[in-house]
Amino acid sequence: MNAHGTAVLDLNADLGEGFGRWHLTDDEALLSVVTSANVACGFHAGDPSTMRRVCERAAERDVRIGAQVSYRDLAGFGRRAMDVPPDELADEITYQIGALRAFARAAGSDVAYVKPHGALYNRTVADAEQAAAVVAGVLRAGGALPVLGLPGSRLHEAAAGAGLPVVTEAFADRAYTAAGTLVPRRTPGAVVLDPDAVVARSVRMAREAAVTSLTGEEVTVRARSLCLHGDTPGAADLARRVRAALEAADVRLEAFA
Amino acid sequence: MNAHGTAVLDLNADLGEGFGRWHLTDDEALLSVVTSANVACGFHAGDPSTMRRVCERAAERDVRIGAQVSYRDLAGFGRRAMDVPPDELADEITYQIGALRAFARAAGSDVAYVKPHGALYNRTVADAEQAAAVVAGVLRAGGALPVLGLPGSRLHEAAAGAGLPVVTEAFADRAYTAAGTLVPRRTPGAVVLDPDAVVARSVRMAREAAVTSLTGEEVTVRARSLCLHGDTPGAADLARRVRAALEAADVRLEAFA
Amino acid sequence: MNAHGTAVLDLNADLGEGFGRWHLTDDEALLSVVTSANVACGFHAGDPSTMRRVCERAAERDVRIGAQVSYRDLAGFGRRAMDVPPDELADEITYQIGALRAFARAAGSDVAYVKPHGALYNRTVADAEQAAAVVAGVLRAGGALPVLGLPGSRLHEAAAGAGLPVVTEAFADRAYTAAGTLVPRRTPGAVVLDPDAVVARSVRMAREAAVTSLTGEEVTVRARSLCLHGDTPGAADLARRVRAALEAADVRLEAFA
Amino acid sequence: MNAHGTAVLDLNADLGEGFGRWHLTDDEALLSVVTSANVACGFHAGDPSTMRRVCERAAERDVRIGAQVSYRDLAGFGRRAMDVPPDELADEITYQIGALRAFARAAGSDVAYVKPHGALYNRTVADAEQAAAVVAGVLRAGGALPVLGLPGSRLHEAAAGAGLPVVTEAFADRAYTAAGTLVPRRTPGAVVLDPDAVVARSVRMAREAAVTSLTGEEVTVRARSLCLHGDTPGAADLARRVRAALEAADVRLEAFA
Repeated sequence: MNAHGTAVLDLNADLGEGFGRWHLTDDEALLSVVTSANVACGFHAGDPSTMRRVCERAAERDVRIGAQVSYRDLAGFGRRAMDVPPDELADEITYQIGALRAFARAAGSDVAYVKPHGALYNRTVADAEQAAAVVAGVLRAGGALPVLGLPGSRLHEAAAGAGLPVVTEAFADRAYTAAGTLVPRRTPGAVVLDPDAVVARSVRMAREAAVTSLTGEEVTVRARSLCLHGDTPGAADLARRVRAALEAADVRLEAFA
Repeated sequence: MNAHGTAVLDLNADLGEGFGRWHLTDDEALLSVVTSANVACGFHAGDPSTMRRVCERAAERDVRIGAQVSYRDLAGFGRRAMDVPPDELADEITYQIGALRAFARAAGSDVAYVKPHGALYNRTVADAEQAAAVVAGVLRAGGALPVLGLPGSRLHEAAAGAGLPVVTEAFADRAYTAAGTLVPRRTPGAVVLDPDAVVARSVRMAREAAVTSLTGEEVTVRARSLCLHGDTPGAADLARRVRAALEAADVRLEAFA
Repeated sequence: MNAHGTAVLDLNADLGEGFGRWHLTDDEALLSVVTSANVACGFHAGDPSTMRRVCERAAERDVRIGAQVSYRDLAGFGRRAMDVPPDELADEITYQIGALRAFARAAGSDVAYVKPHGALYNRTVADAEQAAAVVAGVLRAGGALPVLGLPGSRLHEAAAGAGLPVVTEAFADRAYTAAGTLVPRRTPGAVVLDPDAVVARSVRMAREAAVTSLTGEEVTVRARSLCLHGDTPGAADLARRVRAALEAADVRLEAFA
Repeated sequence: MNAHGTAVLDLNADLGEGFGRWHLTDDEALLSVVTSANVACGFHAGDPSTMRRVCERAAERDVRIGAQVSYRDLAGFGRRAMDVPPDELADEITYQIGALRAFARAAGSDVAYVKPHGALYNRTVADAEQAAAVVAGVLRAGGALPVLGLPGSRLHEAAAGAGLPVVTEAFADRAYTAAGTLVPRRTPGAVVLDPDAVVARSVRMAREAAVTSLTGEEVTVRARSLCLHGDTPGAADLARRVRAALEAADVRLEAFA
């Protein structure tokens, strides 16, 4: 919250997660909601033509473009952790950022940040070696790109240690532990399914930097960005509702610098 | 040949054509011979780590880096023509150039030209639609990259028409027709196997812009670059011999601008 | 039509055309309609788990399982013709049939026929070399599997020449030429979009072996199987309507032997 | 060792580990040495044409054919452990066995056993969940195939528990711990590089079921099969020397039943 009591929040979502004949995310609808688009770069999803289209649409709407980098795993949609040697992983990250950058620049925009996808996101919360590899790949790609991720993650530590900006994010549809971390997906109650609850939590996170944990404690959650999910039925509608509620609560929606 | 009677020639070869555990080209040896390296970009060969290493070595040796773009076909090594719709093909080209550029720039160099690989190279000699698609992909990648290819090809026509520089190349180990085109690979005698003949033809192409066709006619072959093959046993040795002979014949070996 | 005036028809559709996280065909709905399921084998679509599930469901419902073999092209969904050398193509066919057979047999059924997908289907209508390669791959896979395809296609000629049973199919939602061949997809009117027309054409094809061509002529279309499309919105509903109309018209719906 | 003092040993090696244009193993040379060929099935290596050729050659020489199943990871050659959900992993195993079986049977032979490759081999030594998944995939493929692996591995426990035959193997070029397990690859001395030592250890393993551990203790190693590596320079020569030494030591070389 800034000096005038106005909360400022970025809204990010995964886009362009189809591949060839297959479609997944409702990119058009989400681009009218978010301020930052995590664009799949071809390793877990995202064929070149989809990447181009999403970059063009995002640029038209002034939505920030981020590289949603992943393990190389189309068959598993990047959701299976892999023991990729650090050097290889770093190179895979550089490759994906470079490929997306060509489309972002052609659209008159640029890659403005990096966010790991799926299993790589989860693994680099705690795995310092892979976190360092991701950061090495981002550094090599140039441009000192900000890294979007969980506060306190090894990824953020490695990024900050390397001089990269870090941007924190929160999840309105995920349950938090009393320690302020995410409840693992397999735990009952890990995902908040009630749309009204998701909307209310979004506003409270933005206005009060607070959320009630799964076990009832009040927890502080400070995040510059809120992640909306776009790959489930009704996701676009829920995203629109969250955005409307945030605006009604006088939250300024704005991409991070 | 310039005003002082000195022929100027670029030597190009395909590099980085391994994938993961598999190796193919003797990149180290070839980098000590060529002035331009056609680097595989991941679609027919070329994993990210190989791309990085080749870019680093090329930059160290002042070898120019080119994007060797291909159909998406690891199983067929890009040697099977594909009816890719023009829009998709253009986007695939942009993707590959962007990915390679990240490694080239990280190495302190840049992607300096584009050369299609294998079946895409052959197809765009005569297929105006795919040639235009490749050029569209190069344009979108930015930088007005020169296109290396066969004189008179649809690819060169499309590139020139779009305002891109075109660079001509010749093949010392391929037989030419009386019309100055390449003899198709399946024709007996299409490939010149005798190393001495390859060396002699190289020198004559550089000094006299001439070659004797398969059917005995003298043919004019003007090329700014000579393509050396690197994926056969003895290829690196032959490349070294060609270079030495060219230097002995007072041919200045220099990448195109 | 048999001696008692009862038309006998097989209904086939493409199933299991998702890949990992991506879904396409409404497999459950289609399995309640068709008598033969063309199951994707992993080259244009169809991950192993989807193949297993479709085989299990098909076996439960007594739906015949066919191998929907394709070029190796996930990015293009098998819709881009490829110049695959005949030996490689034959081996790719054998591979796909073998993989599907493992799931079909585990489900208590078996692979009962082969149908090429997409660009391979279209190409083997007229390309004798690739048609022969597909047949060689089917032969090598063993079991003398019937080949489902267009009457008069090179594929059917090659299959019959090799002693394989051939099964003819027709398309109720595709326009026919006066010569009885399919109107190319790019021609206006090539696809019949009106569901009522599709239903009416299905019944007439089954009862009268006839269809009105795009240019108005009456054309004979004898087919043992009718292909229903399953990858468009409303496809499953239309398939149900076609089936109901055929049953009301006293057409016996039965897989080919 | 049987009642007559004759040791009986199987020799296995990985074969067909190329992919398209890339070659790795010297299949011809190894097929003249081994009694069992672990054939790559397309997930870490092994295109369909290579699979066919290796199966044909193996059948001609009466070499047993085994399915060398792997994680789906061409880029990493199956050497990167992956958190594949058990159901998916089981289905991937079934798929690979089915594909190879088509070629093995076409060659007049059959898939006679299963051996996991690389990271899957290592992981299923200790990971009971993935071990069970592999066994589930083998069971579904039918034929009650024997599972080749390390004595005491979770994989062997799961296989035996499911009623599958288990076949033990040893490695003459790998150091053993005092506990009789393999020294991890990263430990200095983990790989025995001296060819003479490898030959001597092979004979001692076969004749005395014994090996000297890295730390000097005498360890019992009972194995029905000895694994030879085929993907390093000189591998084929060393394999030939091992075989000759075993024969000279009156060891009967024979595939397991």
